Amino acid sequence: MIIVMEAHATQAQLQLVLARIEALGFRSHISKGSERTIVGVIGDERPVEPETFEVLEGVERVVRILHSYKLASRDFHPAERVIELPNGAHLGGPDVLMMAGPCAVETREQLEAAAAAVAEAGVRVLRGGAFKPRTSPYSFQGLGEKGLVMLREVADDHDMAVVTEVISPEDVPLVAEHADLLQIGARNMQNYKLLRATGSSGRPVLLKRGLGSTVEELLQAAEYVLSEGNENLALCERGIRTFETATRFTLDINAVPVLKHLSSLPVVIDPSHAAGRRDFVPAIARAGIAAGADGLLIEVHPNPSEALSDGAQSLDPEGFAELVAEVRRVAEAIGRGAA
Amino acid sequence: MIIVMEAHATQAQLQLVLARIEALGFRSHISKGSERTIVGVIGDERPVEPETFEVLEGVERVVRILHSYKLASRDFHPAERVIELPNGAHLGGPDVLMMAGPCAVETREQLEAAAAAVAEAGVRVLRGGAFKPRTSPYSFQGLGEKGLVMLREVADDHDMAVVTEVISPEDVPLVAEHADLLQIGARNMQNYKLLRATGSSGRPVLLKRGLGSTVEELLQAAEYVLSEGNENLALCERGIRTFETATRFTLDINAVPVLKHLSSLPVVIDPSHAAGRRDFVPAIARAGIAAGADGLLIEVHPNPSEALSDGAQSLDPEGFAELVAEVRRVAEAIGRGAA
Amino acid sequence: MIIVMEAHATQAQLQLVLARIEALGFRSHISKGSERTIVGVIGDERPVEPETFEVLEGVERVVRILHSYKLASRDFHPAERVIELPNGAHLGGPDVLMMAGPCAVETREQLEAAAAAVAEAGVRVLRGGAFKPRTSPYSFQGLGEKGLVMLREVADDHDMAVVTEVISPEDVPLVAEHADLLQIGARNMQNYKLLRATGSSGRPVLLKRGLGSTVEELLQAAEYVLSEGNENLALCERGIRTFETATRFTLDINAVPVLKHLSSLPVVIDPSHAAGRRDFVPAIARAGIAAGADGLLIEVHPNPSEALSDGAQSLDPEGFAELVAEVRRVAEAIGRGAA
Amino acid sequence: MIIVMEAHATQAQLQLVLARIEALGFRSHISKGSERTIVGVIGDERPVEPETFEVLEGVERVVRILHSYKLASRDFHPAERVIELPNGAHLGGPDVLMMAGPCAVETREQLEAAAAAVAEAGVRVLRGGAFKPRTSPYSFQGLGEKGLVMLREVADDHDMAVVTEVISPEDVPLVAEHADLLQIGARNMQNYKLLRATGSSGRPVLLKRGLGSTVEELLQAAEYVLSEGNENLALCERGIRTFETATRFTLDINAVPVLKHLSSLPVVIDPSHAAGRRDFVPAIARAGIAAGADGLLIEVHPNPSEALSDGAQSLDPEGFAELVAEVRRVAEAIGRGAA
Repeated sequence: MIIVMEAHATQAQLQLVLARIEALGFRSHISKGSERTIVGVIGDERPVEPETFEVLEGVERVVRILHSYKLASRDFHPAERVIELPNGAHLGGPDVLMMAGPCAVETREQLEAAAAAVAEAGVRVLRGGAFKPRTSPYSFQGLGEKGLVMLREVADDHDMAVVTEVISPEDVPLVAEHADLLQIGARNMQNYKLLRATGSSGRPVLLKRGLGSTVEELLQAAEYVLSEGNENLALCERGIRTFETATRFTLDINAVPVLKHLSSLPVVIDPSHAAGRRDFVPAIARAGIAAGADGLLIEVHPNPSEALSDGAQSLDPEGFAELVAEVRRVAEAIGRGAA
Repeated sequence: MIIVMEAHATQAQLQLVLARIEALGFRSHISKGSERTIVGVIGDERPVEPETFEVLEGVERVVRILHSYKLASRDFHPAERVIELPNGAHLGGPDVLMMAGPCAVETREQLEAAAAAVAEAGVRVLRGGAFKPRTSPYSFQGLGEKGLVMLREVADDHDMAVVTEVISPEDVPLVAEHADLLQIGARNMQNYKLLRATGSSGRPVLLKRGLGSTVEELLQAAEYVLSEGNENLALCERGIRTFETATRFTLDINAVPVLKHLSSLPVVIDPSHAAGRRDFVPAIARAGIAAGADGLLIEVHPNPSEALSDGAQSLDPEGFAELVAEVRRVAEAIGRGAA
Repeated sequence: MIIVMEAHATQAQLQLVLARIEALGFRSHISKGSERTIVGVIGDERPVEPETFEVLEGVERVVRILHSYKLASRDFHPAERVIELPNGAHLGGPDVLMMAGPCAVETREQLEAAAAAVAEAGVRVLRGGAFKPRTSPYSFQGLGEKGLVMLREVADDHDMAVVTEVISPEDVPLVAEHADLLQIGARNMQNYKLLRATGSSGRPVLLKRGLGSTVEELLQAAEYVLSEGNENLALCERGIRTFETATRFTLDINAVPVLKHLSSLPVVIDPSHAAGRRDFVPAIARAGIAAGADGLLIEVHPNPSEALSDGAQSLDPEGFAELVAEVRRVAEAIGRGAA
Repeated sequence: MIIVMEAHATQAQLQLVLARIEALGFRSHISKGSERTIVGVIGDERPVEPETFEVLEGVERVVRILHSYKLASRDFHPAERVIELPNGAHLGGPDVLMMAGPCAVETREQLEAAAAAVAEAGVRVLRGGAFKPRTSPYSFQGLGEKGLVMLREVADDHDMAVVTEVISPEDVPLVAEHADLLQIGARNMQNYKLLRATGSSGRPVLLKRGLGSTVEELLQAAEYVLSEGNENLALCERGIRTFETATRFTLDINAVPVLKHLSSLPVVIDPSHAAGRRDFVPAIARAGIAAGADGLLIEVHPNPSEALSDGAQSLDPEGFAELVAEVRRVAEAIGRGAA
């Protein structure tokens, strides 16, 4: 941590800063510049927040030197991490993983048709929502446990793994019983009880970036899961809030190389939520893979015009099959396979 | 709801749209413009999402006519809403309500000193965090139930009401036992289980706007609380995420008149979190009241330089007393009192 | 400037960094932390960009210690700056200055009616656009020189000063001939030729913040004007682009205390452009003054429903008179007058 | 245009709205919904702004049906547009076009080395800045005309076309004399005089999106160029301002399919400015091409660590050659060539 003193800070103010550094068990290091004095704080700064020093008189600002997370960093774990799912599919590693299915599980027929379609395209992981967080209390909220059971059964028929969202800490055991990969949604990225609960669930976790959250905060949230001892964690970029309204969210494509640089956790792209419209999904999916993402999460519905949620952004089986073919070619172009 | 057809939409596509409108129990109304046909959907559109129609072939886009919330709207409840707290303090109505205290409850001594200071300045509501959601798992997470008990006892000593955050649905009964006003934090604005739980808690609720959430989404979240039958609800603007990094968040001052226009729920401003630095807090607090807010939520610490969290944005007792005096004068300038 | 080396930076990489520092005429200062080595660059860093060092192998990032502007900083010019206009009105100093008038000069009658209304309310500075930058090439683009002449004549009739926008460097002499305060619009905040031209125009300048620009960049743009020797400069906050769409822009109220902290230049608020709707203008205007702004720029039209531009955000004379009365009371509440 | 009346709008207010519609030469169409009356405005709404009606009493809001631009729309010009440069290179059409070179022209040696390197990699268009808009007045501002002459001569030696930025309307003839493609920078996207000047320059134009500008505004700015009769126009996405600070800007990858949907103008991606760091450039470049962009603008410097501007984001010749090879493979994967 670097403490920048104000231009007119007094010697007494500097002494108080030094005393505070020492009291916290750190060593200090003073450097007098042409117009400012700066003080280096030496030691593991992670448990200390910059405000500990910002609050002192004569301090202009405090700059972190180390990231605020550790287990999630590539410095700590340089080798690429790979998650192996029970059916043998891998998230992370040489190949790209496709995960697809309906936004919400609606009926057995709908789910079976969707699963058959995505399995036919070669997909090994079935997505589908049983617990749906909705902005309006008047919208369809999901089938709950009934939906989980359907997901499991239908996935098993096709030797697929299941990824589904869990929205509350007390639901974690139930969801973990039926699913292979627990998804934490964007609105829950900073639901710390939920992060801890999935961290100790024994199941791999897919953590979506909050729509108003930075990459740094995503990695801090990842730290909650990792610090519970769960190393099977992947991150998902699904679009952030910006001033642009032409699409529902703005997919932060830069986040792919940034996350790969800062961390060795697998990175997934969700183009369906970012676009909000199916006709933009294939272009964004290809871009995500070209940028280096390890997986895709895509909404597919056997009959999008009758979907109970997110129909507008769901591909139909034909559109999805085309997308898969395109994504395979892009993956090969950058030296990867796609499963 | 208005459905705008594409320039080259066919008659067959239009017929399918009309059939879908009828199947959902609405009536339709066609208007042919110079370059586009538009279709009006007549009936209560609230339970229907725009995507229900956006997904159909030939549809360019869909525009909502009604807001997606009802109980939270001023149309539904034109009269100003007022929350009465057990000690007789009011949030909403003619006077402005000050709520102040430490970010986190740390020790009995700290809390007593803070409470004495804010009570001395005439404040009737004590704030303090017992459950702290923190971005890093390595930061202080609050005293939990012990903190709640302290808050209650110390507040009672000064005939103050208590406002404190609840971060998980299962904690609601415990927090409701000790607190008079349940705060839902920005990171939980779309934690729908928590919204419902506070909605049926029997306690007034203070709902903070998410840092990446629109005013419309804040009112939709409010609808969750109101739809559980709880009418004692206030909204809090505490800053949103923007590109500006000079302050921690950007307080959306426009949101004050906007919320007052759209809804009759009381509006509170939290300048401490928006600024992130104590020297900017008084200016933002005065601005919030001048804009028409009904209350302020301010962090005060007896000794900010030793606070375990958010010290940099906490005022000391002297600074806070000055702020209160200024806010009183501004409130009077616009014809209100301040309690 | 502080250079943070990567965790695994080699000794050879460090030597190259030190050599580069020396080659640029600075001294260096090494501090070895627990996990990172940091290098201080000692000397006046302002003309050097962080990327000069970021580009070197082994460098993780570079942190500026000094601001990138100098003349615009309060460190350089601690005393409050005051602009005196030819009619004796002051921008900056103890009193708040009201500037009002129509968005665009349309006709002599319109301008006279608007000027009479705002003069009647006690306003000493008339605003009005003769050159209008418009997002669409099909919109009304202003009366040009004819509008400038009208502005001058009508203002003189009421002993008012004139503030008007200049949109191109070659128009500066013409606008400077007729106006007392040259406004640089938000879309031109980084039009550096225009900044320099107004800087050497001999006229006071009102510089609006770009809608996608930070406070730091606003002060850098101010530096362009000041570095031409023109000290009569004021800054204007008029709303920034955020994800919120309930108002046209989000007024950054925090920017008022931030700018006052970083600089001694007068600060003006433009609530009309930020709101985009007249009914929200008074609340935002009061907030700006309560936060410490030195002036307001308000759109007033004698008959807003027939305005050629920005009618929706223009107040009518009655609404404006009320706003002025409210603003006066708020200014008094914080110990200032209003002219 | 659709006018939504307030819930409690009176019959008299409605009559005034209808009268205003008629006075402007439109026809109206009334539709009474369950809670709101809506009025359709029939005719070519483009020259009319929504505020014309928003300002009337009883109006809640106004929704545009048509886009505010016409010439730039795909509805108006469905076929893909292709720009042919004098050396036979094409921007738009089946193949992807690479444009590369240094951020700023510094010396003859630097430019020759950069040009040789990019020509060696097969690039047909040389980029380089002679007029540099810089945020700080103390930074290097470019060589001006001398730089233009160098660019032309060095490009001719390699049979390359030249793309370079023009920052002021009066410089357009000079730049047009030496360059084949006139670049309008992000900070000038709404410099309407400059847009018009390039529109009538007789040269193709490359228009960069403003960092705080929407896709809609980019197309409106394009309309200025097109309305001067210049059809050789391409658009460039180079990153927008968001809350994320891990990269300098956030490249809006969604904008590629969105622009392709709304318009038939060629689309270029500038990954260097979006990333701000060379190690992220290849991933973003590949993503842009995978998403469907028609060209790339890349900064290459023979010796980035000594560049006078933007060194941190410039690739060296080896890094660039690798990027070109990768981009070629991605282009082929989606059925395109790359020149």
